[in-house]
Amino acid sequence: MKLLIGDKNYSSWSMRPWLLFKHFGIPFEEVLIHLNQPDTNARVLALAPSGPGKIPCLVNDDGSATWDSLAIAETLAERFPQHALWPRNAAARSRARSVSAEMHSGFGELRSNMWMNIRASFPGKNATPGALADIARIEAIWRDCLDTYGGPFLFGEFSIADAMYAPVVMRFNTWQPALSEVSQAYVRRVTELPAVKAWIDDSLSETHTVPYQDDCP
Amino acid sequence: MKLLIGDKNYSSWSMRPWLLFKHFGIPFEEVLIHLNQPDTNARVLALAPSGPGKIPCLVNDDGSATWDSLAIAETLAERFPQHALWPRNAAARSRARSVSAEMHSGFGELRSNMWMNIRASFPGKNATPGALADIARIEAIWRDCLDTYGGPFLFGEFSIADAMYAPVVMRFNTWQPALSEVSQAYVRRVTELPAVKAWIDDSLSETHTVPYQDDCP
Repeated sequence: MKLLIGDKNYSSWSMRPWLLFKHFGIPFEEVLIHLNQPDTNARVLALAPSGPGKIPCLVNDDGSATWDSLAIAETLAERFPQHALWPRNAAARSRARSVSAEMHSGFGELRSNMWMNIRASFPGKNATPGALADIARIEAIWRDCLDTYGGPFLFGEFSIADAMYAPVVMRFNTWQPALSEVSQAYVRRVTELPAVKAWIDDSLSETHTVPYQDDCP
Repeated sequence: MKLLIGDKNYSSWSMRPWLLFKHFGIPFEEVLIHLNQPDTNARVLALAPSGPGKIPCLVNDDGSATWDSLAIAETLAERFPQHALWPRNAAARSRARSVSAEMHSGFGELRSNMWMNIRASFPGKNATPGALADIARIEAIWRDCLDTYGGPFLFGEFSIADAMYAPVVMRFNTWQPALSEVSQAYVRRVTELPAVKAWIDDSLSETHTVPYQDDCP
């Protein structure tokens, strides 16, 4: 399987499925396509003609495409039942799907104000009321899950739910909003996970830039 | 199981899981909570304290909550394997998850410009370039799926993917953008599905209104 991803420094949606492959040791080939170039979509479409021309996109062995971070995650969970991509317990799994779907379709204020840029440091900036409301909700989700399942990750061991929130952890490292101690400790644990560290290290050595995301006036 | 939903005339996200229960004959109790009221969130939280206070929300038999239309759909698919909520074929299922996830997180321009209001008729209005681009992508998805799987629904028989797009069908009935014949025929088939007809009929007899969604200047 080939996973088409964007620049690791910026591509929050690509980070999620990549972490799942890496953390669970699922063999894959990664193909990095620079974001924000005139031919970005065309390059994705050339490799995955049945998809939407967006990343992340999984090119299956038969040439077909599976796209969107959450659909790739569900597909991997189904194809590799030997790995607990979702929690094994049905009630926990239903809740993990709930918080993952909530992240997948929501938190627009956080996304637009505090974009992912791993190399950058914008402490205290863009803390709009909408972004802070999103952060409060994320902290409530994390606290509830860590309380209920005992950590170290949202549902015990690292799962799709943590992968869905990993880009938020990156945003928090860059924008450094005020967080509870529980959230800060979770941010540290995610940041130090080997698969996450590998993604961060790769992003630090990238040279392609997306100028409008490197500035925060 | 209790399914908390909003007004059927307006609540596009509620329509999706409700259709799945109804179409597949899964027993459930529906609880309708009026949208846009000062106590809307509080009423949802009172019935589903472990959820986010938003609808749709499924209250499980043990009192726990499963929320967000896509997470409810995946949970139902898992709990009721006797029904083909997702296509039975693995490749088709992966693609059904892709187009469902694309709908779940995307099409913001269509959503904001052509909201769901089943009772209303706003033909030709709000056809912004962004909304039209979203519609073009939706038509491409429908055409590809109907071509590949032969219809009458996106992956043959009615599945979660059709439920995810059913609110778009309602929007198309209200806003009447120009559509291909293939799309028009699919819109008719979805509109005439008994479960969809039942939802529409209920919406027509509702009396609670959300005034700012009833006007389109």
